[in-house]
Amino acid sequence: MAQRRVQVQPVENGRTWWEPFDQLLVATGAIPFLPDVPGAGAAGIYGLSTLQSGIEVRRAVDQEQPRQAVIVGGGYIGLEMAEALRLRDLDVSLVEMMPQVMSTLDVDMGALVSQALRGVGVHLYLEERLEGFEVADGRVRAVVTDKQSLPADLVILGLGVRPNTALAADAGIPLGQRGAIRVDDRMQTDIEGVWAAGDCVESFHLVSRRPFYVALGSVANKQGRVAGINIGGGHATFPGVVGTAVSKICTVEVARTGLQEKEIEQLGVEHVSARIESQTRAHYYPGAGRITVKILAEKGSGRLLGGQIVGVEGAAKRIDVLATALHAGLTVDDMLNLDLSYAPPYSPVWDPVLIAARQAVKLV
Amino acid sequence: MAQRRVQVQPVENGRTWWEPFDQLLVATGAIPFLPDVPGAGAAGIYGLSTLQSGIEVRRAVDQEQPRQAVIVGGGYIGLEMAEALRLRDLDVSLVEMMPQVMSTLDVDMGALVSQALRGVGVHLYLEERLEGFEVADGRVRAVVTDKQSLPADLVILGLGVRPNTALAADAGIPLGQRGAIRVDDRMQTDIEGVWAAGDCVESFHLVSRRPFYVALGSVANKQGRVAGINIGGGHATFPGVVGTAVSKICTVEVARTGLQEKEIEQLGVEHVSARIESQTRAHYYPGAGRITVKILAEKGSGRLLGGQIVGVEGAAKRIDVLATALHAGLTVDDMLNLDLSYAPPYSPVWDPVLIAARQAVKLV
Repeated sequence: MAQRRVQVQPVENGRTWWEPFDQLLVATGAIPFLPDVPGAGAAGIYGLSTLQSGIEVRRAVDQEQPRQAVIVGGGYIGLEMAEALRLRDLDVSLVEMMPQVMSTLDVDMGALVSQALRGVGVHLYLEERLEGFEVADGRVRAVVTDKQSLPADLVILGLGVRPNTALAADAGIPLGQRGAIRVDDRMQTDIEGVWAAGDCVESFHLVSRRPFYVALGSVANKQGRVAGINIGGGHATFPGVVGTAVSKICTVEVARTGLQEKEIEQLGVEHVSARIESQTRAHYYPGAGRITVKILAEKGSGRLLGGQIVGVEGAAKRIDVLATALHAGLTVDDMLNLDLSYAPPYSPVWDPVLIAARQAVKLV
Repeated sequence: MAQRRVQVQPVENGRTWWEPFDQLLVATGAIPFLPDVPGAGAAGIYGLSTLQSGIEVRRAVDQEQPRQAVIVGGGYIGLEMAEALRLRDLDVSLVEMMPQVMSTLDVDMGALVSQALRGVGVHLYLEERLEGFEVADGRVRAVVTDKQSLPADLVILGLGVRPNTALAADAGIPLGQRGAIRVDDRMQTDIEGVWAAGDCVESFHLVSRRPFYVALGSVANKQGRVAGINIGGGHATFPGVVGTAVSKICTVEVARTGLQEKEIEQLGVEHVSARIESQTRAHYYPGAGRITVKILAEKGSGRLLGGQIVGVEGAAKRIDVLATALHAGLTVDDMLNLDLSYAPPYSPVWDPVLIAARQAVKLV
């Protein structure tokens, strides 16, 4: 094989050079979606993707003392920024083009999160599409949607990310789902000796058995470990993900794993859906509060397909039971008698996850 | 078959009678171990097994204003009473005959719980055996161990329970492990049409594949559901337990599942043990605190055998991931890439359970 090399250009200006390699890791991450609308380049509009962008937003809040913040996008970044800015006593509006925030949840569960946002005083504008920004003297003055103009002296964009793979594509490395780099389960690209990991790569979804793109630190870390072991001459595999994610808005916890209803429908799989309300602790124990658990399972077989949780403190981490059950391919019937921990400070005598499984079993 | 019947005697005096039955459920529960030592019948000594016994202890604390409480036994009841009495500002001593409290944990993990007890001001006396009570005027004055005499005006006995099966044994229903009623996976005893559920029955341990006795509300509830469905003409099974349990002492959470080291050794299985320390949240997130996770796995195969967790708030419920993995028969290698939820308020980017699994994989 001819000597392979990669062209290196320092971030701070300097002479570029060609660096020879035997093994190459592409870890170029993701870049935030920026909207191609009028005024998008104005001062006062922030994306959030790096530590530096977080520092800049905090500096703006500290020094410019904005009063009216508008967040565009109701995903994790949007939710977390809504919490942070409300805690700084800003007037916060959030614009989301879908019928509910957190579009990785089903609409009924997303509605609980919308309710939580309103509960902390966020003005929520659902089913509104960003059309542009009003700008004066180079600074943003308002966010313009298809329905209204929202005054703003601080704008946060939380429109999601896409894999940063222009470099890989230019080098001829094949891409897959949503332009992410295609890799095998050892994190090797279609080019031998060229590896990739993190937010720039495609993952495999262990429930849908399809390629899947997800940009999360927990996944990126696991992929990096596997790529590193293999590049170092060892053997490790990353079988894939089940789509677990978790967030919070003040005291309300939100978690999801597996497939949501619209994904299941797209796969043409017939399913049942069980949604139950319970408590995070024994009802008489101090601090007990509401938790809603939704479980999706295949009709007939009862195979677990996904789950979603919204509730008070102690709710969200229960999603890990469902994530583990998805990895293991359990059915809701298998789950009925899971020996989950019980003591009054931690759970009702039937853990809410088991109550949801019981309900699902009746429908399967 | 001849008409079957059961003799009924009201708790409050009355005429006994014979009640005919087609199906019979024995749900006689468990009774606390009471020590056969001098003075055990004195006033001021309380076992804890029913709501009524809890009410009596509270009444004693409220009305008799005891100052020096001694708890005998360092299991769940002992720990929870130590917390409750410390919160009522009593001087609390705890006597345990084993080298650490919580003997269902390995000694190294139990030591963390002992440390937590001392941290809340409990005087802890390990490796001391109860020999009797000093009594004056019919009231307890001191707890006597093989090493000392501890002044006490309130004594709590937390010596564990045994299945309450005298009635079943008298009726000729076969007993198993520790005198608990033997049942099949539908909760039927060896006598057709006679069922049993709850703290009076033997369970099957899904990890050791041996009969096992456990008295916990979560298990009893699942068994009751299964017995009820079957008695009603349906079909349900209770495959068994993996030995999950959870408790807390003030701010320290304690959880365990599967087999502990001494049980694994008794089975003659070669195993590895991985114990790691991590944080309950991202290290920079407010409220992050220490969590210790121990994982036990079979040498060679890597099959998960058990796990134990001690840590601050948010630590204990993570045991449910290990319980689910035990049900599914996962290996620590399977667990490495579990897609557990991550966001800074909930977990480091590698969940502590995964860090422990990573450590175990290296040793397998």
